[in-house]
Amino acid sequence: MRYFRICGEDRDHLAVQEGDLAYDLTTANESIGSFRDLAAAASITGDPIDAVTDRLLDRAPTVGRAALEDARRPLDPDEVWAAGVTYEISEQAREAESGMPEMYLNVYEGDRPEIFFKATAERTVGPGAAIGVREDSEWDVPEPELAMVLYRGEVVGFTIGNDVSSRSIEGENALYLPQAKVYDRCCAVGPAVVSAATVDDPHDLEMSMTITRDDETLYDESTSTGEMVRTCEELASYYTCHNAVPELAVLLTGTSLVPSEEFTLREGDLVAIDIDGIGRLKNPVVTV
Amino acid sequence: MRYFRICGEDRDHLAVQEGDLAYDLTTANESIGSFRDLAAAASITGDPIDAVTDRLLDRAPTVGRAALEDARRPLDPDEVWAAGVTYEISEQAREAESGMPEMYLNVYEGDRPEIFFKATAERTVGPGAAIGVREDSEWDVPEPELAMVLYRGEVVGFTIGNDVSSRSIEGENALYLPQAKVYDRCCAVGPAVVSAATVDDPHDLEMSMTITRDDETLYDESTSTGEMVRTCEELASYYTCHNAVPELAVLLTGTSLVPSEEFTLREGDLVAIDIDGIGRLKNPVVTV
Amino acid sequence: MRYFRICGEDRDHLAVQEGDLAYDLTTANESIGSFRDLAAAASITGDPIDAVTDRLLDRAPTVGRAALEDARRPLDPDEVWAAGVTYEISEQAREAESGMPEMYLNVYEGDRPEIFFKATAERTVGPGAAIGVREDSEWDVPEPELAMVLYRGEVVGFTIGNDVSSRSIEGENALYLPQAKVYDRCCAVGPAVVSAATVDDPHDLEMSMTITRDDETLYDESTSTGEMVRTCEELASYYTCHNAVPELAVLLTGTSLVPSEEFTLREGDLVAIDIDGIGRLKNPVVTV
Amino acid sequence: MRYFRICGEDRDHLAVQEGDLAYDLTTANESIGSFRDLAAAASITGDPIDAVTDRLLDRAPTVGRAALEDARRPLDPDEVWAAGVTYEISEQAREAESGMPEMYLNVYEGDRPEIFFKATAERTVGPGAAIGVREDSEWDVPEPELAMVLYRGEVVGFTIGNDVSSRSIEGENALYLPQAKVYDRCCAVGPAVVSAATVDDPHDLEMSMTITRDDETLYDESTSTGEMVRTCEELASYYTCHNAVPELAVLLTGTSLVPSEEFTLREGDLVAIDIDGIGRLKNPVVTV
Repeated sequence: MRYFRICGEDRDHLAVQEGDLAYDLTTANESIGSFRDLAAAASITGDPIDAVTDRLLDRAPTVGRAALEDARRPLDPDEVWAAGVTYEISEQAREAESGMPEMYLNVYEGDRPEIFFKATAERTVGPGAAIGVREDSEWDVPEPELAMVLYRGEVVGFTIGNDVSSRSIEGENALYLPQAKVYDRCCAVGPAVVSAATVDDPHDLEMSMTITRDDETLYDESTSTGEMVRTCEELASYYTCHNAVPELAVLLTGTSLVPSEEFTLREGDLVAIDIDGIGRLKNPVVTV
Repeated sequence: MRYFRICGEDRDHLAVQEGDLAYDLTTANESIGSFRDLAAAASITGDPIDAVTDRLLDRAPTVGRAALEDARRPLDPDEVWAAGVTYEISEQAREAESGMPEMYLNVYEGDRPEIFFKATAERTVGPGAAIGVREDSEWDVPEPELAMVLYRGEVVGFTIGNDVSSRSIEGENALYLPQAKVYDRCCAVGPAVVSAATVDDPHDLEMSMTITRDDETLYDESTSTGEMVRTCEELASYYTCHNAVPELAVLLTGTSLVPSEEFTLREGDLVAIDIDGIGRLKNPVVTV
Repeated sequence: MRYFRICGEDRDHLAVQEGDLAYDLTTANESIGSFRDLAAAASITGDPIDAVTDRLLDRAPTVGRAALEDARRPLDPDEVWAAGVTYEISEQAREAESGMPEMYLNVYEGDRPEIFFKATAERTVGPGAAIGVREDSEWDVPEPELAMVLYRGEVVGFTIGNDVSSRSIEGENALYLPQAKVYDRCCAVGPAVVSAATVDDPHDLEMSMTITRDDETLYDESTSTGEMVRTCEELASYYTCHNAVPELAVLLTGTSLVPSEEFTLREGDLVAIDIDGIGRLKNPVVTV
Repeated sequence: MRYFRICGEDRDHLAVQEGDLAYDLTTANESIGSFRDLAAAASITGDPIDAVTDRLLDRAPTVGRAALEDARRPLDPDEVWAAGVTYEISEQAREAESGMPEMYLNVYEGDRPEIFFKATAERTVGPGAAIGVREDSEWDVPEPELAMVLYRGEVVGFTIGNDVSSRSIEGENALYLPQAKVYDRCCAVGPAVVSAATVDDPHDLEMSMTITRDDETLYDESTSTGEMVRTCEELASYYTCHNAVPELAVLLTGTSLVPSEEFTLREGDLVAIDIDGIGRLKNPVVTV
């Protein structure tokens, strides 16, 4: 099932889409104000998330399609992490931008993946909201990625993530990675969280990205998560081991759609990312 | 099952007693920090509270008996309400203290029960903590009562309540009731919340109270909730109808153990209330 | 100064009106999201509330008049209390509706005022939102009142309150007062909180109320808070003494504008209350 | 002034030390439960933090020395960041452990400092609590550092930080830095927050560290923050620029006390860090 956050009268509501219809779960039960509440209840009772939802559907009023199109960031993660060089093309891009290419090759081929702190909820926008490029950066790119949603370390769902990055700052020195990655509006997630049970195989999903400037399409490519050289389980296990992970986290799995080297994002560009079964995450760009 | 709040290392834990053993539910699942969390999960998934607990028991470490004896207020109610003149003896006591006896008789015999706002969590103490008598009051009494616990208006459990009251202020004028009833440390609840499913018949419970001063027993009587002229359902329905009740509330059901008229509570007295299957709620008295 | 809560992009903002202009204090300092935050800071530093505001004004952008007209409930009180029979006309009305008139006369003339729990934030609406009349009540009235705002027991401001009440339930028996007073949408406050320093004399304010049905004016009277037989200090001192008052409370001071006995509120009626220097609180009526 | 968090009866209290005496600020004003509350009030009113404290002292009861010695983590930061290679010795150590020495030299000499996400409050311990070394790491070191406390991006105080790190994981590949730095119990701060106004010159503070194992001193060296090649202002400005920094953050300034290469922390070791005017931060070591 696909979970959205929609605007209610006094507070946001959690809605779920099932086939052609969508249902307001918060109206069905006031104790469910968010995906976090639903995941907490399922964790406590040991039920699958969708089973909890199923039992609520007959009390849940239907929701118009327009509400889903105006959906907000589908969850408030306590933290967002991301993985790097998990696709061959990404490894090549890092080698090209860096003066130290072997560092990326070693990670690409090594047992331990690269994972890094990406954002807090305050730095993360939802569908339709502006993603940012740093004013002190010259070369900026979107990074479309499949994102895992973890409740207390367990993968409970998937969403789309955009790991917007400064390639010029990262390229200058790998130690500048946090500044290339973590800043105002550096991350987007949405439009929905799809429960883990709904995704047959997260390593076999079509993913595409288009970038538009002044109505002109500058980039339009697609790939498959099957190209990833790591598994989701592997990435999640490195994130959670020896770690005090928070209640609700997002873990991006790395990118494989890389615009050519002459491309950089500009204020006003529009980035749209599609992943089969999750939806389309669309964001304009602003300078921050 | 009987639910207690015990002290953990960094935060309070929810524990449950089953026969001779008790289990730490918060250690079993960090998302359950309190009875409220458990009730919320059960409400969301539609499971009975004890069924949720059952599934957690094999992961829950056992808890020593000492921890239960140091248990704290078992829940943080958003508000506490109470019912009045629900027992014949209480009706007689109110008549005697008041210049307007027919008012109490009318309520005792009327369709609509008397229910009133009693306390907030901040005014309510747990087992072992001091209950208060107002410094501007001359005649003060404990009122031992069976208490319902309501989650979003549904009765999910029972506990013991002590509706400490100033009879001199209430007796002066019925309009002074809120000042006779609502003040610092005016209420005690505990020691545990017993799930509704565990109580065969809330209208057939033995209840007793002892009051001790300087090791001398001043009062020691018992009664049965079977003496109540209202049902719990009736009281709960008058509390919830046309009302915006909060997530977690306590509703006391009225008293039938009334010390003789010459008795008044003094600082240092010790009040102990027992209800079958719930436990013993014991509190010293201070002047506030 | 007059403080309003207005809608911001992601959260509500606190705005202040000074003469013809209004300023957004939350934009001036993100730590001030509400009147409570401002009162807390003033309480901690020992500054008058308006002095804190004064220092923020040069960083605060101006706010359009339309935003003030769409203002929401100006504060989220932890609890609302109210006083009864503080005006002669109110005492007469209570005598008339009750079978026990002497009870009201005694309070009117007694040392101790009548104060009672009126509402929580969840039961209290802001300007423009619907106030409620109980479906099980036949005779319902608005009660326009000057309202004190207390921060940790200190009077820090004033607003307008509407203590909507069921006279039939209260009239049946004084012990039913909580049910006549406390229910869904039983209270309105707003449109603004005026700092205590701004009000020269709370016992010399013009107050008026109009009630309109289908564009016809059914009631239009005015009075002065000078008619009150209690002082604000006296009412506040009885509320706070021996009591564990919450951080932020509202205390209504009683009513003196009483429609004639044949009048009862109906769904669709519009009630507007004006108090000099505070503004106009306008609410439609619904059945709850 | 030096601010501590001490245990109160029902909640933690904020205490301040002035000369030989310490005072309980939470008892003086219930609205101040933490350093964050104090910083928020000072930010709102524009007062210096210590000026706010000054006005509260006459209402604040004194606190025994024992309470300060049992002080807990002095603040709950929304996030902790840290700077790297800000001292010459640290640059040398990184070169030595890494196969890519020029990367560290470039940062040491470059305009842009290295700053990175270090921890959340949940991963950060206070004085006396155990710091962690990862079970999958072979070479682990404490990193004693002067730490800035930032309220909404402004430096309002200083504390001591211990940036516990896995040198083997970081040494394997610079891209593994987040895993070498961020894990369970990876950070310690305390024992107190010293207000910025109390520190004459943060670039002229004596700092020392001792490491003890089985009562034997394995390391005992001292240095001065005067050896730092960056200023605090510079580090803070890189952290805050183009960034959505949270309300309350800690920024560690880098290390210059580096045990010899054969040393690694073991479970049971005791690490004590002293900085002039701030105090001593002492923590045992556990494997996580």
